[in-house]
Amino acid sequence: MTTNENNRLTAQIQDALEQKDTERLRFLLRKQRPEDIAEACHFLHAYECDHILELLPPDVAGHVLYELDPVVRGEVGEMLDPRVVSEALTALAPEEAADVFEVFSDEFTESVLGYMNPEAYGSIEKLMSYRPDSAGGIMTPDVFWLHEDTSVDEAVYTLQDTEDIDAISYLYVVDKDRRLTGVMPLKRLITSDGNRKLADVATRDVISARVDDDQEDVAHMVEKYDFSALPIVDAQGVLVGRVKSDDVIDVFQEETTEDMQKVGSVMPLNTSVLNASFTALYLRRVVWLVLLVFVNIFSGAGIAHYEELIEAVVALVFFLPLLIDSGGNSGSQAATLIIRSLATGDVRVGDYSRLLLREVAVSLMLGLSMAAAVFFLGLYRADIQVALAVSLSMVCIVIMGSLLGMSLPFILARFKMDPATASAPLVTSMADVLGVLIYLSIANAMLGIANG
Amino acid sequence: MTTNENNRLTAQIQDALEQKDTERLRFLLRKQRPEDIAEACHFLHAYECDHILELLPPDVAGHVLYELDPVVRGEVGEMLDPRVVSEALTALAPEEAADVFEVFSDEFTESVLGYMNPEAYGSIEKLMSYRPDSAGGIMTPDVFWLHEDTSVDEAVYTLQDTEDIDAISYLYVVDKDRRLTGVMPLKRLITSDGNRKLADVATRDVISARVDDDQEDVAHMVEKYDFSALPIVDAQGVLVGRVKSDDVIDVFQEETTEDMQKVGSVMPLNTSVLNASFTALYLRRVVWLVLLVFVNIFSGAGIAHYEELIEAVVALVFFLPLLIDSGGNSGSQAATLIIRSLATGDVRVGDYSRLLLREVAVSLMLGLSMAAAVFFLGLYRADIQVALAVSLSMVCIVIMGSLLGMSLPFILARFKMDPATASAPLVTSMADVLGVLIYLSIANAMLGIANG
Repeated sequence: MTTNENNRLTAQIQDALEQKDTERLRFLLRKQRPEDIAEACHFLHAYECDHILELLPPDVAGHVLYELDPVVRGEVGEMLDPRVVSEALTALAPEEAADVFEVFSDEFTESVLGYMNPEAYGSIEKLMSYRPDSAGGIMTPDVFWLHEDTSVDEAVYTLQDTEDIDAISYLYVVDKDRRLTGVMPLKRLITSDGNRKLADVATRDVISARVDDDQEDVAHMVEKYDFSALPIVDAQGVLVGRVKSDDVIDVFQEETTEDMQKVGSVMPLNTSVLNASFTALYLRRVVWLVLLVFVNIFSGAGIAHYEELIEAVVALVFFLPLLIDSGGNSGSQAATLIIRSLATGDVRVGDYSRLLLREVAVSLMLGLSMAAAVFFLGLYRADIQVALAVSLSMVCIVIMGSLLGMSLPFILARFKMDPATASAPLVTSMADVLGVLIYLSIANAMLGIANG
Repeated sequence: MTTNENNRLTAQIQDALEQKDTERLRFLLRKQRPEDIAEACHFLHAYECDHILELLPPDVAGHVLYELDPVVRGEVGEMLDPRVVSEALTALAPEEAADVFEVFSDEFTESVLGYMNPEAYGSIEKLMSYRPDSAGGIMTPDVFWLHEDTSVDEAVYTLQDTEDIDAISYLYVVDKDRRLTGVMPLKRLITSDGNRKLADVATRDVISARVDDDQEDVAHMVEKYDFSALPIVDAQGVLVGRVKSDDVIDVFQEETTEDMQKVGSVMPLNTSVLNASFTALYLRRVVWLVLLVFVNIFSGAGIAHYEELIEAVVALVFFLPLLIDSGGNSGSQAATLIIRSLATGDVRVGDYSRLLLREVAVSLMLGLSMAAAVFFLGLYRADIQVALAVSLSMVCIVIMGSLLGMSLPFILARFKMDPATASAPLVTSMADVLGVLIYLSIANAMLGIANG
């Protein structure tokens, strides 16, 4: 469904809601996919969305809840009758239901679980016990597995009796303790000799991940090997679920959004910008901004130290923003390149020394190019002495900024911190402080005596 | 394979290469996956990697070539015998082979294609005719499709005779002109009544994408609907391929890397930072840096305009870096939030006015918080008048920076340009120029008369 079609659906729903035309609303919704209804809900009031959810059959309502933005989901869900929510969530896969529960209060979760049958209840609770950002937190427990002594024919019969694992593409082969010993694509089941044992036709060299592995590591494995699903085992090697490649897409999107927010010195929002509250936005931005004010106090102190020089040659101030910005800009470039490369795994912590020398060379060339641009500006605004001081400062500041920007993410990674904490604003502010000191001490050395 | 295991493999390969122990090398490589060999190759010289590729069976060599970073692939591949490359690429899926060809020179491509059989040649050439960033550029032409009048039993027989489409999970149903009319999961084939026609058991409401659709739109569809594969049709609705969810992961990773590089004001590198050449890095960074120097000339001009004020109250300079940085930092925050939200589809161009008011409120609060922090600094370094001027400037500058940062990506998107062009350095530099003007004109109004 295109953006325009979605806008039209939203408008039609709003229209039907305003006219309290329940029949038309029901008719409108009947033909829609849950993903599209959820998208429309983000443009409605919570009570309107609740009205829609109550009209939908439980399985559709469940999927709409699942597709909603977490913040909206919490707001909308808790206003519904727990019995309605329970029916809706029973229709979902257990891992989807567990994700929905994550945003509900403990009381509401308990009252919803109270309406569920013990089996559904059990598998959802089990999933909720894993960390949300671990393999267990993103896997589905619905796997198609059989004992290795099963024959291919028996496996086909079993598959025919298995309900509703529509999306499976692999059959996992296990030993008597359900430990994972093999894997085969479903298609091979259809093309193999019916009398052979699964142990003989399956691929024995199975790549799997542990249930407590970090979701990012699991995602990188799926990305690297191009699997459509990766089996997940517990500490004993027992098969407990699988992570599908479409779940991995969500992990990458989520992790990247977090990384980009950090690079912009915003603490992770965990919701869309549209749905973030005023307070959430304020709190997630103010901390870094105020911290950076304190970093910048040092630049003021540096300037105060050279007060006499500035009084003597006020023209020096003209170039101050230009020079410190250039250091910050080249630093932001270097930091962004390294942060992303560390995140994708293109660069590892051990590659630092290999990259350092090239960065020195690149930043020297960058600095010289920019120095050439400002030299003539210096001549025009002041004199040859100032022009030389500004140009030399530019080279030094760009090299300093670049090395700072490329090193900071490595240092953070080395100490097991998130490299993305080396945000563009942090690098810029640090480069500015050092830039002020470099500029004014160079200017002082070159002009202080002549003019002072 | 973990990072450590990979490092060990690299070391063992290097060791065997140094000792020219071909037997040991062959033994080492026999047990490895192509993905892991490719990873090791990135730490070897091109000629060493060539030596390895010549030792490998053609199908493994093909996969290693495919997994290599594009820059390394070009270097390594073109040094090989075109006949060897041709055999290796024939073993790949056509879309993988087409991707590999992308980095080769026209001459080398032709000489490799010369060794291929006409059928493989044709399907690879067809794929190479699509734009690399379109659905056609990322799809695989290997789809399992049957006519809608086929019975379920016949379909199962056909599947049994179909070679090596291991990874398929859907059967696509087409009419006599191969136009897509239905879809069904493979599993349903096993569980349906054998006598029924595919037309009756397939899902008729198929979501598909057009072969010339942008890869990003296709990726968002797969993400939204959680498909493991999306069928691709041409302008006539004829089925021509499918895009798998693991291909979508690569699209998202690639697009995000580009976005982050743009946000850091680096032009897209299209290769890993480790493999980028000195010249590539220099050229992709220098353009923005020099452009930003020219933006910053205006801040110098602003300062020159207030030269007398600065000479009278030098203390004003102390706060200059702090104030302009704060505007840039809040602007970077706002820009990063909006750029990412526009990329994920959380925010659309039409949401601007909805977000504007909240941004005014949030940035006012941020500005007041930061003004409180600098007020005391102003008192300490100068006097109450300077402290007031600095605090008031802080509020205005933070609001200006935030609104600039949030608006610029929207404006770019509105004019069909990439919102990520509103990089942190661009926003910072523009905010700095405006910040200088705001600060000095406020200071001039409040102090100019008293001190001048």
